[in-house]
Amino acid sequence: MNSPHRIGVVVGSNRPIRICKQIAQWVLGIAQNGSALGYELVDLAEIALPFLDEPAIPALGNYQHEHTRRWSALVRSFDGFVFVLPQYNWGDPAVLKNALDFLYDEWSGKPAALVTFGTRGGLRAAEQLKIVLQGLHMRNTATNPALNTRPDMLDEAARFIDIGAAFAPFAPAVRQMCGELAALLADPVASGEALQ
Amino acid sequence: MNSPHRIGVVVGSNRPIRICKQIAQWVLGIAQNGSALGYELVDLAEIALPFLDEPAIPALGNYQHEHTRRWSALVRSFDGFVFVLPQYNWGDPAVLKNALDFLYDEWSGKPAALVTFGTRGGLRAAEQLKIVLQGLHMRNTATNPALNTRPDMLDEAARFIDIGAAFAPFAPAVRQMCGELAALLADPVASGEALQ
Repeated sequence: MNSPHRIGVVVGSNRPIRICKQIAQWVLGIAQNGSALGYELVDLAEIALPFLDEPAIPALGNYQHEHTRRWSALVRSFDGFVFVLPQYNWGDPAVLKNALDFLYDEWSGKPAALVTFGTRGGLRAAEQLKIVLQGLHMRNTATNPALNTRPDMLDEAARFIDIGAAFAPFAPAVRQMCGELAALLADPVASGEALQ
Repeated sequence: MNSPHRIGVVVGSNRPIRICKQIAQWVLGIAQNGSALGYELVDLAEIALPFLDEPAIPALGNYQHEHTRRWSALVRSFDGFVFVLPQYNWGDPAVLKNALDFLYDEWSGKPAALVTFGTRGGLRAAEQLKIVLQGLHMRNTATNPALNTRPDMLDEAARFIDIGAAFAPFAPAVRQMCGELAALLADPVASGEALQ
């Protein structure tokens, strides 16, 4: 086909000082390199949804608010997702769970990968989010890189001194994850297209 | 002692149409009946926190925002908690996870019980939140009632027609949970007082 599949790389934290966006950009750089898929950053800080405020349950798709309709259209425009997120208290960030809970059918059947980070890689947050992805009928990749972060990777402004060097050991896993995303997209059953 | 222990019954949903507050009030009624503890409703819709916007990590307690300092003081004033929550997409509501993530030491060592609800009782959300409570060093009760809800329990305005009758089968579990909360409070090790 002429138009490539579009993959949203979701920045899953919106704290005022955050390293999540830098990590998402690093993931996007690795993912895009040589790929036929089109990766794009989706920054939840810019989307700026409120806490879920729709009166009806999202599965009905009967949205009352313009911010929900905008988010719905944006999510519909993507064929798959990479969610990049920190771990907070052994769980996932509320801003990401809220953005997921706002919609339902828009996620259904689409491939999704997780890139977590934290001192120990954020593995517990990934475990929780895998269950949520299953609840949303998304197709999770087998590989979900868990990046170990250390304070000495950052300068005083919380910028990575050399993010490529810091996460070089994880680049093969990110490439593996991207290959799995592409394979899920190429499989009409796995990608959910056969269900529609 | 003269002043009873204070237990916050947290309303863990802030959607415009919600049954969570009615359920929290029902739990509070069962819990308070004959108890030496003082149960009080804590409605996250009224607390109205934004998404976590502190620049420093909460464990440092170095809060920049007045809304965080108010929430910190309120949580500090309670000796234990009952979190009442719906299940969204097999996980917990963002508004509750966000309220938990805003603080750290304020939760530490305190007893916490979960009351979940949903068509199947919200058991998956409870499983996720138990891990988060552990991450926050809270002491979770053994009994965490999971209330089965049905559409025919509600009138057209989403009010319970007879909440006492609807949840009567779960009242013994709520009383059991409250007994466990009281026992944890009476145990200085389990309640975390020995750590301070």
